[in-house]
Amino acid sequence: MRSNLYKTALLENVIPFWSKNSIDKDFGGYFSCLTREGKVYDTDKFVWLQGRQAWMYSYLYNNLAQNEQWLEIAKNGIDFLCKHGMDENGNFYFSLTREGEPLISPYNIFSDCFATMAFGQYAKATGDKQIEELARKTYYNILERRNNPKGKYEKSTGNRALRNFSLPMILSNLVLELESVLPEEEVNRRIDDSVTEVMDIFLQEDGLIYENLNPNGSFSDSFEGRLINPGHGIEAMWFMMDIAERKNDRKLLDKAIQVVLNTLEFGWDKEYGGIFYFLDVKGYPPQQLEWDQKLWWVHLEALVALAKAYSLTGDQKNWDWYKKVHDYAWTRFSDKENGEWFGYLNRQGEPHLTLKGGKWKGCFHVPRAMYQCWKAFQQIESNAPTSK
Amino acid sequence: MRSNLYKTALLENVIPFWSKNSIDKDFGGYFSCLTREGKVYDTDKFVWLQGRQAWMYSYLYNNLAQNEQWLEIAKNGIDFLCKHGMDENGNFYFSLTREGEPLISPYNIFSDCFATMAFGQYAKATGDKQIEELARKTYYNILERRNNPKGKYEKSTGNRALRNFSLPMILSNLVLELESVLPEEEVNRRIDDSVTEVMDIFLQEDGLIYENLNPNGSFSDSFEGRLINPGHGIEAMWFMMDIAERKNDRKLLDKAIQVVLNTLEFGWDKEYGGIFYFLDVKGYPPQQLEWDQKLWWVHLEALVALAKAYSLTGDQKNWDWYKKVHDYAWTRFSDKENGEWFGYLNRQGEPHLTLKGGKWKGCFHVPRAMYQCWKAFQQIESNAPTSK
Repeated sequence: MRSNLYKTALLENVIPFWSKNSIDKDFGGYFSCLTREGKVYDTDKFVWLQGRQAWMYSYLYNNLAQNEQWLEIAKNGIDFLCKHGMDENGNFYFSLTREGEPLISPYNIFSDCFATMAFGQYAKATGDKQIEELARKTYYNILERRNNPKGKYEKSTGNRALRNFSLPMILSNLVLELESVLPEEEVNRRIDDSVTEVMDIFLQEDGLIYENLNPNGSFSDSFEGRLINPGHGIEAMWFMMDIAERKNDRKLLDKAIQVVLNTLEFGWDKEYGGIFYFLDVKGYPPQQLEWDQKLWWVHLEALVALAKAYSLTGDQKNWDWYKKVHDYAWTRFSDKENGEWFGYLNRQGEPHLTLKGGKWKGCFHVPRAMYQCWKAFQQIESNAPTSK
Repeated sequence: MRSNLYKTALLENVIPFWSKNSIDKDFGGYFSCLTREGKVYDTDKFVWLQGRQAWMYSYLYNNLAQNEQWLEIAKNGIDFLCKHGMDENGNFYFSLTREGEPLISPYNIFSDCFATMAFGQYAKATGDKQIEELARKTYYNILERRNNPKGKYEKSTGNRALRNFSLPMILSNLVLELESVLPEEEVNRRIDDSVTEVMDIFLQEDGLIYENLNPNGSFSDSFEGRLINPGHGIEAMWFMMDIAERKNDRKLLDKAIQVVLNTLEFGWDKEYGGIFYFLDVKGYPPQQLEWDQKLWWVHLEALVALAKAYSLTGDQKNWDWYKKVHDYAWTRFSDKENGEWFGYLNRQGEPHLTLKGGKWKGCFHVPRAMYQCWKAFQQIESNAPTSK
């Protein structure tokens, strides 16, 4: 049964890999720069990955089993973030030395998003009121900064103001994560706002999610405006499915699933298989030299979206795409020798960086997707116990 | 004769490609975003590429032939830069709209470097005293900013201060470009400083040029400190050869050539051929996802360095490497159908972006290298008229 594939991968492969290799017992926090074998090759600490890992272990503790080792690993990250993560204004640094000295200033808001996600789950796990308060404080600080998230580090002059998809997308998931620590009306308002932003604005008439739009929501014919990030769009759609399920909104659910399928049709590499990392909607050369690479998180988010879609609708189209992405991803990304998944394949589907973690890959997309797919397949199997 | 290959490529292929496709007759300046066929696919203007192209046409006018069309094309860029390139402090923007409205603020110093190079050559071509003064002013502004080139956009906290190779390297070439507009003692002092910085500091004991060092010149065991950019190191070495030739310094010449050979040994892809874009000196995964790509400018700079080295020494090792890089580069980068060179090959050597210009590729490395190789081969052929 497929649910077992994901359960086993999560509990016997992926989580043990991070539990064994990533804990900094001397200075707290986590190492994220791990070789294929799990050896630490650099000790810098990227704050958003610290948040993501602390979130992951807290989440598993809350949702899977009250395993004290998991909570201890979560605490190791939470303590490090509380001690070293913030500047004097409560903004989170981008990176720190192993010891926790700040290296890169708070020049964007994503460190803060993942820190508050971690605080929310950890507070839920432990009942720690101080951490709960910190989660709330950080959340409201994000909202306050959201119209100028880069602050003084913003290099754009404003002559081509663009609204960006990342923050509304993250907020749509973040607010559900923080449900236990935020007032109900704030959660509901933010959910409604996010759905409007994502589905009525960033979802454009061609059925694709755009990364950047003019302030009035129209298409900007510029490098930024033409950019399509299929993984981003697909990930946002399973956040929308979660909201649809919660609100029992079938229309939203169907629309989100349709966007997943549109994005896969658009973003699938017909020659070598796999989903492109970046595309220009007009077919022009994107600025990103890595545009044709196949990234772990893109494929994992697609597996989650498709497994959820199939579990909620039973629609064959979702199943066909699930199978296609599954066959591509599991044979190429999963490292049979050393566990966990490779992060970066070239267009042809071979790993051209064999790291298990670095500046962008940490303990997050792989275990989160394993958990989400496991749960979706449990649902699928209970719907139709003999199939799939 | 090889000199003819380069002469023909420069005068009948590369320069006509840019003269025909890149001139913005309506708003001034140059389009750099050109498809494989030379069609404009985006009209944003990247200031450093404006400077590079205005420099290139001025340089050809000064060094090859007083072709009025070239001077007019140079003027088109110079006028645009003067009118739109600078903020109120004389710092150059990173990018502008087609019409010249600023898009991205002056967050680094490279726009300024290439603007001043252009002003220097253009002033030499025309005797324009205002442009000459602007070249000097911009040059001294660069020197003033060089200890904090990113100004308020610097995201690094200073807890891991690093000295970076780019600026000393560019200055070593820039100062020769500005020779006609700077006082002799400034030129000589800057040349001596640059040679010391490049050859005594950034050239480390293993015979390679490092991109970033600790302030005291020692190795920093960090992502930035471990980074080797073979193309950068090789390009800097032909700047050093030019200085060695000027100073008649055989020791410097031999040392620079040895570094070129070291870098090629280190940076050559033994499996697929070509020179890697980025490598980690310890063999760890670099942060750059594009690390294994083969870039046009890296190979062109290697051709220049090796042709110069061979023309100055007649050493067979230089010739063997020249042949190897030549055979790799000319068969893969040169676009037989539409002229000019491709910019970006994947590791296997196939173009994965077929653009002729974009945010980073403009009218610079290809024509400059064609000119430099042509002149080096003229020298080689006059040394030994029957060979090569």
